[in-house]
Amino acid sequence: MNSNRVVKVKATVSIEKETPETERPDTFLRGNDDGVASSVRFRFEKMIREAQDTVCNAIEIADGGGKFKEDVWSRPGGGGGISRVLQDGAVWEKAGVNVSVVYGQMPPDAYRAAKGAASNDQKPGPIPFFAAGISSVLHPKNPFAPTLHFNYRYFETDAPKDAPGAPRQWWFGGGTDLTPAYIFEDDVKHFHSVQKKACDKFDPTFYPRFKKWCDDYFYIKMGSNYDHRLEYNDGMGNMLDTWSSCHRDERRGLGGIFFDDLNDYDQEMLLSFATECANSVIPAYIPIIEKRKDLPFTDHQKAWQQLRRGRYVEFNLVYDRGTTFGLKTGGRIESILVSLPLTARWEYDHKPEVGSEEWKLLDACINPKEWI
Amino acid sequence: MNSNRVVKVKATVSIEKETPETERPDTFLRGNDDGVASSVRFRFEKMIREAQDTVCNAIEIADGGGKFKEDVWSRPGGGGGISRVLQDGAVWEKAGVNVSVVYGQMPPDAYRAAKGAASNDQKPGPIPFFAAGISSVLHPKNPFAPTLHFNYRYFETDAPKDAPGAPRQWWFGGGTDLTPAYIFEDDVKHFHSVQKKACDKFDPTFYPRFKKWCDDYFYIKMGSNYDHRLEYNDGMGNMLDTWSSCHRDERRGLGGIFFDDLNDYDQEMLLSFATECANSVIPAYIPIIEKRKDLPFTDHQKAWQQLRRGRYVEFNLVYDRGTTFGLKTGGRIESILVSLPLTARWEYDHKPEVGSEEWKLLDACINPKEWI
Repeated sequence: MNSNRVVKVKATVSIEKETPETERPDTFLRGNDDGVASSVRFRFEKMIREAQDTVCNAIEIADGGGKFKEDVWSRPGGGGGISRVLQDGAVWEKAGVNVSVVYGQMPPDAYRAAKGAASNDQKPGPIPFFAAGISSVLHPKNPFAPTLHFNYRYFETDAPKDAPGAPRQWWFGGGTDLTPAYIFEDDVKHFHSVQKKACDKFDPTFYPRFKKWCDDYFYIKMGSNYDHRLEYNDGMGNMLDTWSSCHRDERRGLGGIFFDDLNDYDQEMLLSFATECANSVIPAYIPIIEKRKDLPFTDHQKAWQQLRRGRYVEFNLVYDRGTTFGLKTGGRIESILVSLPLTARWEYDHKPEVGSEEWKLLDACINPKEWI
Repeated sequence: MNSNRVVKVKATVSIEKETPETERPDTFLRGNDDGVASSVRFRFEKMIREAQDTVCNAIEIADGGGKFKEDVWSRPGGGGGISRVLQDGAVWEKAGVNVSVVYGQMPPDAYRAAKGAASNDQKPGPIPFFAAGISSVLHPKNPFAPTLHFNYRYFETDAPKDAPGAPRQWWFGGGTDLTPAYIFEDDVKHFHSVQKKACDKFDPTFYPRFKKWCDDYFYIKMGSNYDHRLEYNDGMGNMLDTWSSCHRDERRGLGGIFFDDLNDYDQEMLLSFATECANSVIPAYIPIIEKRKDLPFTDHQKAWQQLRRGRYVEFNLVYDRGTTFGLKTGGRIESILVSLPLTARWEYDHKPEVGSEEWKLLDACINPKEWI
């Protein structure tokens, strides 16, 4: 596993403007060797598009009313995506399932920063890259039916043009996680069991590692990124931004699995693993929805769900690398914001009564548990 | 006017943890020469605390029902703040008015980055700084009554301990801006006229410059900061974050005035100017509220307001340097999030009908106008 040192560089990735399409193409890959059916790029795109169909189909059946609206878009030089949104259905207030394929160029400065090169003498050319992903957030109406997020993605670099022999880099990332407003222990156990079963098919260390990674990830990002910032002007026309930590000390939900930068296993094995994870979304989620979608609820319970939706928005907009990677690589702002709920609420300094069901949820977000 | 080159450095500013207070202290300044009544620090704190009282008083009277809840907090080594929130009133769904005073230390690395120093040989000590500000966001219930934001702040550095003779730096920043869901041209003209009148007392160039700065600021920040990000792993355990632009090409509202890094005028004059601006908030805003707070409205109009509130959340959480400077320097997360509305809504790819009142508002956000 890689270390997770993050080098932040403000730089522009070169990606063309997207154009709407009236039909879904067979592939968003470029018409060169990317399209070879044996390539990982080709098979990953096929996998995420099949997963999109399967998930959307299952959601429409379970919803029993809402239908997905589809937007297809592409870029002249290759790449594109399919955004699907079901809004104001019978069961879900908003359900988005997007796939995207992106070809881009890493700027040389970014490349140097990544390499940790200290000198400006090295001038490598731009690094072409390929990224593909599926990303989804499903927000039900009933406060007892949980929100689900999943995202699986594959990333590859090409050799720079001025160094054609350089090896390609590749990695897989993704995860599936559950965010209820109320805890039904059976539901959470079922959800985590399905994740564990998918993981155990490949490596017994995967579930414990990726479960913890999920807990840590949705915590760390608040601590390290939702920082409060001060401005400092040195009097020379330079504005300095800096930060100091401002924690919520809270996870977004009850976790699941999360992994990133995964490239230290066999590539075929990881492709199969990502496929298994994507195929586990429906068996992990729909049985919970079926049990909870029609439970009666009070105004108080609905208001608590709305407050938790507000927290979800906070997490997603302030720092959402994992959540919206697939959406963001698409670059369509409406696709990015599809992860937001239809409605949300913020009350100043809201604190649930100690011992209440609302407090139990918050406690489980603050102190993540082993569910299975 | 300074150039606005922004140097971003991820670094920790040293600020102590805040503690709740049961009473408002006379001053949050340290008990040394900061407390001299002639100092700008002292007079700026006095000004923002008086402005907080005046604004909260006027809001409570106009609301005719809601009362502000107050939280006072301080830090052992000096500094603190007063957060006031009125929630679910008769006129406002959420109104927050916060003041804060902060003493902190800029880390030497941040200082070097600000100075643009290339070498690591220079090792200046930490730079002590002082910041004080008032920050407020007022969200009414009626969709015809606009949201108001204002923020005025003062910043000073001390000389580093290892360079006691170095000159202090200081600057003023702030602004007042209006975000309606529907345009009443009379209201917008009145609002901008009051801003212009305040500006004209000091310099005839202020209003046109700061009006444009406000339009540019609430636009640029989307373009330059709400960028979509890609991740690149160089295979050596380094994760590179980079961005490509993802514009809304839209301003948050109908503008007002905004200025930042202002230090190239007489310091006394700028203190008077900031005071005049803060004192203009109520005359600019309350007459509009009185005219609009009881207008009848439809569900459709309320839903449009909720969508605009969603956009407001998007702006504030993704990039909110101006909005929440005063809140953020406080470091209390609940104070930071007081700028969010009580409720908001996001619909996928919502587009108002061309020529409708909703479309006119959006058009004015996309193409800022000269209102007076």
